[in-house]
Amino acid sequence: MSTRPIRVALDAMGGDHGLAETAAGAAQLSREDAPIHIILVGDEPQITAALAGHRYDPGRVEVVHAPGAPIAMAEDARAALEARPDCSIAVAARLVAAGEAEAVVSAGHTGATILSAARTFQRLPGVRRCALAAVHPTEQKHGPKGDPFALMLDVGATIGASAEDLLSFAVMGSAYAQIISDNERPSLALLSNGVEPNKGTPEIREAHRLLSAAPGLRFHGNVEGLDIPRGTVDIIVCDGFLGNVVLKMLEGVTEVVSDIAKDAYARRFLWKLGLTMVSRDLQQLRQMTDWKQYGGAPVLGFDQVVIKAHGRSNARAIRNAVKVAAKAVDRGLVRRTAEGIAAVMATSDPRSAG
Amino acid sequence: MSTRPIRVALDAMGGDHGLAETAAGAAQLSREDAPIHIILVGDEPQITAALAGHRYDPGRVEVVHAPGAPIAMAEDARAALEARPDCSIAVAARLVAAGEAEAVVSAGHTGATILSAARTFQRLPGVRRCALAAVHPTEQKHGPKGDPFALMLDVGATIGASAEDLLSFAVMGSAYAQIISDNERPSLALLSNGVEPNKGTPEIREAHRLLSAAPGLRFHGNVEGLDIPRGTVDIIVCDGFLGNVVLKMLEGVTEVVSDIAKDAYARRFLWKLGLTMVSRDLQQLRQMTDWKQYGGAPVLGFDQVVIKAHGRSNARAIRNAVKVAAKAVDRGLVRRTAEGIAAVMATSDPRSAG
Repeated sequence: MSTRPIRVALDAMGGDHGLAETAAGAAQLSREDAPIHIILVGDEPQITAALAGHRYDPGRVEVVHAPGAPIAMAEDARAALEARPDCSIAVAARLVAAGEAEAVVSAGHTGATILSAARTFQRLPGVRRCALAAVHPTEQKHGPKGDPFALMLDVGATIGASAEDLLSFAVMGSAYAQIISDNERPSLALLSNGVEPNKGTPEIREAHRLLSAAPGLRFHGNVEGLDIPRGTVDIIVCDGFLGNVVLKMLEGVTEVVSDIAKDAYARRFLWKLGLTMVSRDLQQLRQMTDWKQYGGAPVLGFDQVVIKAHGRSNARAIRNAVKVAAKAVDRGLVRRTAEGIAAVMATSDPRSAG
Repeated sequence: MSTRPIRVALDAMGGDHGLAETAAGAAQLSREDAPIHIILVGDEPQITAALAGHRYDPGRVEVVHAPGAPIAMAEDARAALEARPDCSIAVAARLVAAGEAEAVVSAGHTGATILSAARTFQRLPGVRRCALAAVHPTEQKHGPKGDPFALMLDVGATIGASAEDLLSFAVMGSAYAQIISDNERPSLALLSNGVEPNKGTPEIREAHRLLSAAPGLRFHGNVEGLDIPRGTVDIIVCDGFLGNVVLKMLEGVTEVVSDIAKDAYARRFLWKLGLTMVSRDLQQLRQMTDWKQYGGAPVLGFDQVVIKAHGRSNARAIRNAVKVAAKAVDRGLVRRTAEGIAAVMATSDPRSAG
């Protein structure tokens, strides 16, 4: 990373734990050796009070006031942003658009984050739909660092995707994996109901054809549901409806397995003894699959860096999300994505260039 | 069950283990007190040889010769059925159409089973697409017997589904759960990317409206991916593409968890000891979620009973699939499904009746 400090606008009011964790994460990061300048956006008196409880480097942390009440998870994003255009996520996005920050990070309302970005930033040329990406744990490792996570997109920024949208998701995901996971040639696949090129919806079949011809991508072909937990490829490309269902199902499976274990644990002495004996391995597995280490997932396709941290983020997850945002800025995620999109557009078949 | 023996045509050559398990399953069932007459369809000399290795009631087992080689999993169903119209699954379906059997059961090629049915049977009035259903283990129990499985359909008979198709899937799934699980008022939901009625594709939003107005159904609304492993409802309705991806992903998760456990088991003495201590509970969990007990999943929407057993079925799973088929015949699954479809068609909104 260069020594020029990168300015990241952090939605201080966002996330299930709000300021308690965002202020702590910002304070923590300010004392580290990373050249990152954090702009906490939200209710200034509350932020100042929250920061007062932490040791932090005041040269690295700044507060920008946003008077509007933050958007609650249950609110409709569109209505809330219209009613309170000066809420923290909207002000944070505008700081980036005005050049006062280089990336925006929020653990708040996902729809409001995407909508604020859509209203404030431009989509990159050739990108018709932005995509929300997410990481999920897999059996196989990925990239040179042996990452136990794979990337999936779109997981719900929009419903439905044309073949060209799926192609641009593939380019966007590849650029992100290259930059964030140091994975020079990430493999990618379309999620379908069979591995054969003729499987899937008409959009997927056409996307298969486009991706097979696209330059600069390591296209594996189609994968099936089985391949998601296995981690057959580094990046899974799908439409936002399918991605949303699949991602929530993975969360559900994790919850249920953990519920069953807890229930059994409470019931039986032998379970307790047995689980204590295996607990070191379980701990290892938990650490390996801990999304908090990962630091959030990007919204891709805009001309600015947008990172959506998990709603349940603690201070460490917030800190990691801000670091991911700074890394994406430093390594030119937006430029590299734009170059990738331009390259596939230049060679794409005129039949489907629409 | 009445005492009139129900005649079930069993594709003797189908499944990963073929005759080794189908003949054993048929032999086993013939010695039980169930009034079921099994017609083993396939290569007669091979079937006779396989049966000779088992004790069976010759009054309850019959062999019908099908000269065509069985369809391998890797074959294209359409091409294979054209090349070998006298293969076992095609002959079995024709026996049912001719009134010589009342249901067909196969553990073979899923596509070939559905296609054979489509070419031989009629779709029920008002049903535009048939659906393949599947059961999956859930945290919550279902119905009066506390079944740890929920039903999902369509899991891949066709790609895509209109709102009216989704409505008919709901009716078909409800009739099946009523008859097979003795669940008089099974709850059902649409799988979407949010619980609100306005979430999902246009087809899902319209299906939500149709289902809310449909008589005789216990419509819960939309569920999300999280609700699949939880088992929030008894029946999940979705299009065949989504259902296929979701079902294969559940299989993949089960595989991966089992791989990780095996790997850890091999590596560490403490794991072995710990797992031995918890093994009785694990055994219980495994039994609870053992699809072999369930006896296959139906293809719904035809005027005949079609049960698709899992490709990996052993003799016991085959036996259970034949019993499920006989139960569906005995309790009038086709008639009750037809009545349900007629009832929703009679009251459905003319705007969407197409």
